Amino acid sequence: MNANESSKEPLVDFLLRMGDNCLILGHRTSEWCGHAPALEEDIALANVSLDLIGQTQMWLGLAGEVEGEGRSADDLAYLRDAYDFRNVLLVEQPNGDFGHTLMRQFLFDAWHHPMLNHLMQSSDKRIADIAEKATKEAAYHLERSSDLVIRLGDGSTESHRRMQHALDDLWSYTGEMLEREEVDAPLVEGGILPDATAVASAWQERVSAVLAAAKLRQPESEYMRRGGRHGVHSEHLGFILAEMQFLQRAYPGASW
Amino acid sequence: MNANESSKEPLVDFLLRMGDNCLILGHRTSEWCGHAPALEEDIALANVSLDLIGQTQMWLGLAGEVEGEGRSADDLAYLRDAYDFRNVLLVEQPNGDFGHTLMRQFLFDAWHHPMLNHLMQSSDKRIADIAEKATKEAAYHLERSSDLVIRLGDGSTESHRRMQHALDDLWSYTGEMLEREEVDAPLVEGGILPDATAVASAWQERVSAVLAAAKLRQPESEYMRRGGRHGVHSEHLGFILAEMQFLQRAYPGASW
Repeated sequence: MNANESSKEPLVDFLLRMGDNCLILGHRTSEWCGHAPALEEDIALANVSLDLIGQTQMWLGLAGEVEGEGRSADDLAYLRDAYDFRNVLLVEQPNGDFGHTLMRQFLFDAWHHPMLNHLMQSSDKRIADIAEKATKEAAYHLERSSDLVIRLGDGSTESHRRMQHALDDLWSYTGEMLEREEVDAPLVEGGILPDATAVASAWQERVSAVLAAAKLRQPESEYMRRGGRHGVHSEHLGFILAEMQFLQRAYPGASW
Repeated sequence: MNANESSKEPLVDFLLRMGDNCLILGHRTSEWCGHAPALEEDIALANVSLDLIGQTQMWLGLAGEVEGEGRSADDLAYLRDAYDFRNVLLVEQPNGDFGHTLMRQFLFDAWHHPMLNHLMQSSDKRIADIAEKATKEAAYHLERSSDLVIRLGDGSTESHRRMQHALDDLWSYTGEMLEREEVDAPLVEGGILPDATAVASAWQERVSAVLAAAKLRQPESEYMRRGGRHGVHSEHLGFILAEMQFLQRAYPGASW
């Protein structure tokens, strides 16, 4: 087994994590379509959702290619069950109100953007290329979600209350994406992935700055939930998949 | 084509209507499991749900038998898409709050129980047998939902307000189940089904009495929605089926 062989499975795992995060958050965000509090926000949410689903296609497409079993991005999206999904628990959490959705988006973007920035330097050119395309979108997502968290956090008493509530509610889901995964070690060593610490400190810096500007209090609890990256999901994911996969399950191979 | 042949398709349609009403209302009711406002009610709702799903098996089992294409009750429940479902729109409506769920249940029970009572006299023994088993459960459902509609309608200002709201909201869905269906004509003629008018007047009598005792006002609007019986459903049914059918769609033929 050469070096390339040995890192094949960890690489697939990593690519699924990237793709599944985008897919599940993209799907959750698409649930707002037609329901956002203002037309402008409705369109913005739909655009974010489409960006994420576009990125999903690239990550899962590459995952299928590296896996080498002939599975397409669509196969991976529509024909796996919950325990094969590798997204963090954060992105499968319900939308709640508009502020809650925005807070979830911000906490994700603050990880996603620096992660993609680092991946642009990946020694694996396929990954660097996807990251380069995706990072522009992620930069815009982060700018937008930061702005809105600040505006709503430092807004009315009611909007402040809701944003603090969302932050408190989602906080325990933030640790998982910042953690170092053992399976990644050979990839980090090979310069394919950045070390998790670098991304985590960029995340913490951004989060601290935005929460301060938003007059929100960073929760003190250090208890963090994990499981999604290893296929142990909250019950929410099953419902998302049931809805998302219905068409391909009911009409196998359907295309347009 | 003899008389039996010609009434085969209408009979299947009728049996699907009976089974699908039970299946969809049973599924909706099961969504309360673990979420009802009191343990006693949680158990009661789960029991009603199980009763309805048990009745589904009998009706859809007979539907598959009469259809003669080898489809089991499970095939009919799990492998049809929305446009092949024949339930009334009423039963697929979302649960709303506890009062809303109870009002939906009452409006259905007030039709279901007299319908089953008439069907016990059906000239088709298979139908009479199912009706005889089901009617005992339906009598209990109706007694319970009537009681609760009265207690909540004639309860606090808040509970009264909610029950009136639920009634106003659901009223336009009640017409569909009371209507005569053209396709039923040969079955009514053959003594297999009762005339819709007989069931409708029993429904109206019960509803008037319970609403009066509950101090609720029967809505005056005569506009009634229809479509479910002919496969034209609200968007809610698609979501119900996606969730309900996931397992059979994802793991075809799975059994336990």
